[in-house]
Amino acid sequence: MGHECVFCRIIAGELPAEKVYEDGDVVAFMDISPVAKGHTLVVPKAHSDPITETPDAVLAKVIAVVRKVARAQFQTLKADGVSVSQANGQAAGQEVPHIHFHVIPRFEGSGRQWTPGKYDSPDEMRQYATRLRDVLR
Amino acid sequence: MGHECVFCRIIAGELPAEKVYEDGDVVAFMDISPVAKGHTLVVPKAHSDPITETPDAVLAKVIAVVRKVARAQFQTLKADGVSVSQANGQAAGQEVPHIHFHVIPRFEGSGRQWTPGKYDSPDEMRQYATRLRDVLR
Repeated sequence: MGHECVFCRIIAGELPAEKVYEDGDVVAFMDISPVAKGHTLVVPKAHSDPITETPDAVLAKVIAVVRKVARAQFQTLKADGVSVSQANGQAAGQEVPHIHFHVIPRFEGSGRQWTPGKYDSPDEMRQYATRLRDVLR
Repeated sequence: MGHECVFCRIIAGELPAEKVYEDGDVVAFMDISPVAKGHTLVVPKAHSDPITETPDAVLAKVIAVVRKVARAQFQTLKADGVSVSQANGQAAGQEVPHIHFHVIPRFEGSGRQWTPGKYDSPDEMRQYATRLRDVLR
């Protein structure tokens, strides 16, 4: 997909992102419109969409990284809970058509709310990323 | 967990559920409070919770069934989109503490809404299950 896909451009290093994890197949980076601070996206490097077109072997690698990121959010962000969410199609709220899993730290009373917010500054986002990266090594 | 866990009891056949898929490791059945009609839960047979305590090999099997169910919802329910969602902890909205993935058919305008609804009758739920089961064979 290359230049048509924002996530492919991030993966190629053509667009900036605050990455917290990367291996040969999967990358995880901060959502710039976080539902809660620490909100992370887990994305396979190979372009595919939606989940029905994504090979099982790729999904297996991605869900293992989702698990690692969830563990990091519990551990370093002291989350009370973690939401994992993956949307297929605009009707489901999907914005970028390259499969991705949202991993969102939750705190008492937050439940399933989905209101995109902001970081106070790029530096605050970087601090959250650093905390996650430190335990994802 | 046995008698303490509702999903373990469904898996053991001690409580009824409208199953749409079953193999040696994973079962899928209808959510009785559907966010949209056709809302399906995908659950590993071995009790574990939360995602951080669930082995990668189990997650790989579960996400492959999530993919199958999503395909079935697109195909037979003519969904415009499909939401996949997995909650860890009450703070994230989790109700049953046995890991499960929600797979929800979405239609134009539904987006990420999360309001549990009802079937008009047990028969209507059975009809949805039959449609999914027929393409999950």
